[in-house]
Amino acid sequence: MTNKKDALIHSALDTLKIELPSWGFANTGTRFGKFLQPAAAVTLEDKFSDAGQVNALTGACPELALHVLWDLPGGVSDVQQVKTFAKKYGIQPGSINPNVFQDQQYKFGSVGNPDPSIRKCAVDHIVECVAIAQELNCRDISLWFADGSNYPGTQSIRHRIASFEEVLKTIHAALNPRQRLLIEYKPFEPAFYHTDVADWGMALLLARSAGPQAYVLVDTGHHYQAQNIEQIVAWLLHHRMIGGFHFNDRKYADDDLTLGSIDPYQVFRIFHEIHNFAWETNDFATVAYMVDQSHNLKPKMEAMIQTVCTAQELFAKAAIVDHDRLASLQRTCSLVEAEECFRDAFWYDVRPILREWRRNHGLPEEPMLAFRESGYLERMTSERRSRNLETVSTYA
Amino acid sequence: MTNKKDALIHSALDTLKIELPSWGFANTGTRFGKFLQPAAAVTLEDKFSDAGQVNALTGACPELALHVLWDLPGGVSDVQQVKTFAKKYGIQPGSINPNVFQDQQYKFGSVGNPDPSIRKCAVDHIVECVAIAQELNCRDISLWFADGSNYPGTQSIRHRIASFEEVLKTIHAALNPRQRLLIEYKPFEPAFYHTDVADWGMALLLARSAGPQAYVLVDTGHHYQAQNIEQIVAWLLHHRMIGGFHFNDRKYADDDLTLGSIDPYQVFRIFHEIHNFAWETNDFATVAYMVDQSHNLKPKMEAMIQTVCTAQELFAKAAIVDHDRLASLQRTCSLVEAEECFRDAFWYDVRPILREWRRNHGLPEEPMLAFRESGYLERMTSERRSRNLETVSTYA
Amino acid sequence: MTNKKDALIHSALDTLKIELPSWGFANTGTRFGKFLQPAAAVTLEDKFSDAGQVNALTGACPELALHVLWDLPGGVSDVQQVKTFAKKYGIQPGSINPNVFQDQQYKFGSVGNPDPSIRKCAVDHIVECVAIAQELNCRDISLWFADGSNYPGTQSIRHRIASFEEVLKTIHAALNPRQRLLIEYKPFEPAFYHTDVADWGMALLLARSAGPQAYVLVDTGHHYQAQNIEQIVAWLLHHRMIGGFHFNDRKYADDDLTLGSIDPYQVFRIFHEIHNFAWETNDFATVAYMVDQSHNLKPKMEAMIQTVCTAQELFAKAAIVDHDRLASLQRTCSLVEAEECFRDAFWYDVRPILREWRRNHGLPEEPMLAFRESGYLERMTSERRSRNLETVSTYA
Amino acid sequence: MTNKKDALIHSALDTLKIELPSWGFANTGTRFGKFLQPAAAVTLEDKFSDAGQVNALTGACPELALHVLWDLPGGVSDVQQVKTFAKKYGIQPGSINPNVFQDQQYKFGSVGNPDPSIRKCAVDHIVECVAIAQELNCRDISLWFADGSNYPGTQSIRHRIASFEEVLKTIHAALNPRQRLLIEYKPFEPAFYHTDVADWGMALLLARSAGPQAYVLVDTGHHYQAQNIEQIVAWLLHHRMIGGFHFNDRKYADDDLTLGSIDPYQVFRIFHEIHNFAWETNDFATVAYMVDQSHNLKPKMEAMIQTVCTAQELFAKAAIVDHDRLASLQRTCSLVEAEECFRDAFWYDVRPILREWRRNHGLPEEPMLAFRESGYLERMTSERRSRNLETVSTYA
Repeated sequence: MTNKKDALIHSALDTLKIELPSWGFANTGTRFGKFLQPAAAVTLEDKFSDAGQVNALTGACPELALHVLWDLPGGVSDVQQVKTFAKKYGIQPGSINPNVFQDQQYKFGSVGNPDPSIRKCAVDHIVECVAIAQELNCRDISLWFADGSNYPGTQSIRHRIASFEEVLKTIHAALNPRQRLLIEYKPFEPAFYHTDVADWGMALLLARSAGPQAYVLVDTGHHYQAQNIEQIVAWLLHHRMIGGFHFNDRKYADDDLTLGSIDPYQVFRIFHEIHNFAWETNDFATVAYMVDQSHNLKPKMEAMIQTVCTAQELFAKAAIVDHDRLASLQRTCSLVEAEECFRDAFWYDVRPILREWRRNHGLPEEPMLAFRESGYLERMTSERRSRNLETVSTYA
Repeated sequence: MTNKKDALIHSALDTLKIELPSWGFANTGTRFGKFLQPAAAVTLEDKFSDAGQVNALTGACPELALHVLWDLPGGVSDVQQVKTFAKKYGIQPGSINPNVFQDQQYKFGSVGNPDPSIRKCAVDHIVECVAIAQELNCRDISLWFADGSNYPGTQSIRHRIASFEEVLKTIHAALNPRQRLLIEYKPFEPAFYHTDVADWGMALLLARSAGPQAYVLVDTGHHYQAQNIEQIVAWLLHHRMIGGFHFNDRKYADDDLTLGSIDPYQVFRIFHEIHNFAWETNDFATVAYMVDQSHNLKPKMEAMIQTVCTAQELFAKAAIVDHDRLASLQRTCSLVEAEECFRDAFWYDVRPILREWRRNHGLPEEPMLAFRESGYLERMTSERRSRNLETVSTYA
Repeated sequence: MTNKKDALIHSALDTLKIELPSWGFANTGTRFGKFLQPAAAVTLEDKFSDAGQVNALTGACPELALHVLWDLPGGVSDVQQVKTFAKKYGIQPGSINPNVFQDQQYKFGSVGNPDPSIRKCAVDHIVECVAIAQELNCRDISLWFADGSNYPGTQSIRHRIASFEEVLKTIHAALNPRQRLLIEYKPFEPAFYHTDVADWGMALLLARSAGPQAYVLVDTGHHYQAQNIEQIVAWLLHHRMIGGFHFNDRKYADDDLTLGSIDPYQVFRIFHEIHNFAWETNDFATVAYMVDQSHNLKPKMEAMIQTVCTAQELFAKAAIVDHDRLASLQRTCSLVEAEECFRDAFWYDVRPILREWRRNHGLPEEPMLAFRESGYLERMTSERRSRNLETVSTYA
Repeated sequence: MTNKKDALIHSALDTLKIELPSWGFANTGTRFGKFLQPAAAVTLEDKFSDAGQVNALTGACPELALHVLWDLPGGVSDVQQVKTFAKKYGIQPGSINPNVFQDQQYKFGSVGNPDPSIRKCAVDHIVECVAIAQELNCRDISLWFADGSNYPGTQSIRHRIASFEEVLKTIHAALNPRQRLLIEYKPFEPAFYHTDVADWGMALLLARSAGPQAYVLVDTGHHYQAQNIEQIVAWLLHHRMIGGFHFNDRKYADDDLTLGSIDPYQVFRIFHEIHNFAWETNDFATVAYMVDQSHNLKPKMEAMIQTVCTAQELFAKAAIVDHDRLASLQRTCSLVEAEECFRDAFWYDVRPILREWRRNHGLPEEPMLAFRESGYLERMTSERRSRNLETVSTYA
């Protein structure tokens, strides 16, 4: 029995790859300010270095998501530099993230802006990102739109839907056959009355309208209070429309906390839907697992290592659900037995098996401990301190 | 200026028809019990009589929604009786509402139940409802499903999606060419972990899968906290997928309070989307306006009259938005001017014009006052008292 | 190390007593109806029998909460019967629960009703409950008020505060020196606009105004979305104002699901506050642990056994937090280490130790299995079936 | 009838003074960046100038709230400058706002920080603010604490309560007899797991513990979804613990939108509680009305003028509720009549009377129009543009 569980966990861990976000290593904050970490990454090379370190310790993070505006400010001309760092630090570029929310021109929106010249800027930037992705051999373009409005009556919600449809078709046309568009949804922030792509239904309709290589991207922190995320995942799997995840956790809004830190049982249930779909259909949906967190207080590197380990633990727990037995108990509506069958996997302490798996793969049994003992943080602190402390932001 | 507003209001009111729910005249309550009103409707005839009274006072409610289980317990054989009452009380049967949540067999769901024999019962009942609707010449079949589960792991969410798709196709096949299926969504209650048709995205996908005569039904009380309902309406209009509304209001859950009693500005915004769509496209979407409220404390008849008058007022306010000017201000992102242009209509006191409209149509200027002076309540109290007070329910 | 954990768990389990609710064994439902279980308890004796069975299997439930209206309809004169059953089934009466929400006179409130004669009825009933509690030697009177209003402007919120203060003082005056008043709060349902005792702040102020033997009762399902319950518990402990808990879980509203079924980590955090307070102050707050759940779908007895076992598991996990180390990491703001120290206890699989503890106490290692093998459910089904199936409720 | 309403509105408007926030004229944003307005205030003098302009146009804003860190970076030594500007621009300093959240040392909290040396910094700063307030003859010190934690287990919630109690007592001791401490609460942001002063109950207990001159400050945007704010106001009035308001509106979180822009009926209900308390007790609670908004998109000056006008309109509407009649209908639980009596005031179009009131006071009838015609914005744009566009912030 235990041996079977062990085997399931080992093979699940072998498949789990978690993409790290370049911006997760840089200093970020809330609107009230940033608490600066002296060891935070400043340059693109810093980010590759940090991500490479996390991958070396965990063996699960071969790719780094890039944010074009921050990481390739020179656009396509920065591609060579990315390739150099990728080779140097042993970590490949992953999903490519355009940014159409930060520039002053996007004050009233990007793709949904009523001004066609601004929409064109947004399209041009995203199409350039597609080109960058092609140069870097990256599969996924992740699209998050801050577009929306803050006050009733100030924008035509319907007109903006039409603009989104039109623009996304154009972008889709720029893809090569193995690329994908991932369309993210989010109920609010920074738009506070209406957000153009507010929920999974809107993202799915836009993806379908854009073309066959467009999918929905589920950020675990982008939901209404009490919304059932695993149910959304089930619907997306059923319709073959799930493209991937942005991992994080939240209690209130899009708090960008570390995965599973507030509600680990929910993450387990999400992973269960994916394992269960694969078990039942033998169709392993192509799901990109990406971290999208903002560690305002936790040390950046520690938070990232912790996130990867937590994801592995919860993924492993979900891997040992007894699907056969569960399906049978679900069919007969044996509620308490089904629930206990399901929870049995959640309560199982998988940590010893994770340590074994790491040992088998030549990895440190305790990645966090290994990191603390490595001296990396101290080195980075002394190298990067002066660069980090020069900029302070204020709220007003 | 004012004359133009007056004209817009008069012509908007001429088009607004609000369907009343038969169950809104009967004693209902919360799980903690029912506070019985001696004048509440008990029989089908009572309900037709009460609805006829509301229509006579407001001139806006020519149809009565019927609940097959409660109103036509004999099924098709009760059709003749409905026709008789319709004629007698001058109010036509409106949408037909199946009930697949109350019978003991539906404990673990109806259309989503893992047991095919129970799914068949549900289909049979709904197909019979379609037949009843055909006999009564009713256009809309309103489908609300209480289906779901209370605990993680106890049901296969994905299997139930497939069951819903299959069943709804069958039901759609039974429609005649002028009938419509309206599919309602609701995030929770009575299911407390997952509800099979939880949001508008699920309802839309199911409607599309069912067939071209299936549409989404928006119950204003069936949303997550803070969800932007008018945005959902805009998406449904854009996709020509809106079938109608169930009117009510809420502060917390599906509280079934009278329309506009908690957030009247939201109702105004919803009506604005509909007026604006018609103004812009000249395509008047076929939208059924139906009341679905549970008046636990307010007197039934007063609550219904109040609801109809509130709907008229908010519909009238939304009718006088200056669409031309608003569109122009939206295009230039003139936020404050656009918002004030929009709100100007909300703050306009339309009540004098409503009184005028009623006078022009031979209706009492103050329907509530007219009702109180009519003696109807007193008559019904003495007629129905004994029938109403015989049943008392307890929580445990 | 493990031995120390084992010892902490054993001694924690020795102290954990969980009061069962008499109404948790009876058929209950939602406003849409009740799904009747043939084995559900109907009579007071049934409830004592069922509770005695749960206690025999778990060894953790020596007391049964009573609901005066449903369990002692004859008031004080029913006390003797309770004593007889308590002796016969080996389970003592626990907290006494008045009911001032079900009778028709309480339509517009009980203790907050603007009509002084109705307030007097409520006081009289509760004072009688205090007398019953004295006769039965019960310490706690649990007060939950459904009072509130459904629509803005329809009641004076402030006047009702004053009524509550006055009435609770009167009730407090009836207590004997070892009795306590527990005042429960709830944000909504069945009142949908304002509930008189809506949050812990209101309950605390009313308890302080009532007198020194009044405390706050925390129902885990009675909070706003995202509210931090363990923080409320920390405040109540700090002010020595916590009286006890009503255990259940929820995803949306007051869903009355089984404890820890939706968010087990939250229950762990609540227990941690209590363990930590005791560890730090050596002051073991008198906290009554009571179940308050409504099992609409799960079999009643199974749900209760499952709840007790889950509470034991989560209580045991919280008992092995390394308080010394955690306090030190909290002082130095070592966030990741503190969190991992805390979570280490949550992830520890305590189930083998629970089985050991049960074995040591002559209890079945798997209470659920023992229950299923006992034949009790089958016996009750045949005894009670006919009584249970005679009443069917409908929504409208 | 109308004359009586007119008189009530005129006299209500005469008493309504709304304090403007200095930071509301400066460029602010979300964590994703700031959209810079060239005319935004940069210096303290700019802020006095802008506030003076709003006051000149509305006649309702004689005071300007100051933020010590941003407006008096030199502390007490900047007092003379404030006095000079106050005289020059005809607007007095209002509430004094310390800042103990922006400095890097406050990463893990200020008053609740486990490090006593950091707590001392916070106390020293706030005590200096009290001294500044005394020099400027300001009555109110407004305290908002960002303190809290992001992850379970990482801080002792109870220890931090004790720290808050101790520090607030020290601060209270520094007040002169006519000063007040206003303690604000907020459920989350920037702390995402627990916020030390999360709700009105915590603020009230801390205020009581601090001393008799401490009161609760209600920010209308700092509540859980669906929480009944007017009920909280009623409780604070009942206990004479309300100190004032921070006005804004929100749909999701602390969105800092303009007052009444999302839910104007709620603002009306809040004002009703205050009018009703004064009518009933003849005790006019000292309530400071302060604006606290962050206009990311709307032009700063327009947004402020709009806010003041909206506050006046809603305050005027609440002033004409027929308290006598309402109280009588509430006593008899005449729900529909009470609600219509209440709403009648909300639907009354008070705008013509506001114009009359302005005319009577020598103010422009349409403050917004007058502002647009004044050329002030154009002058400020040309004066301030270069100063404003030099700083750009990025998220990562």
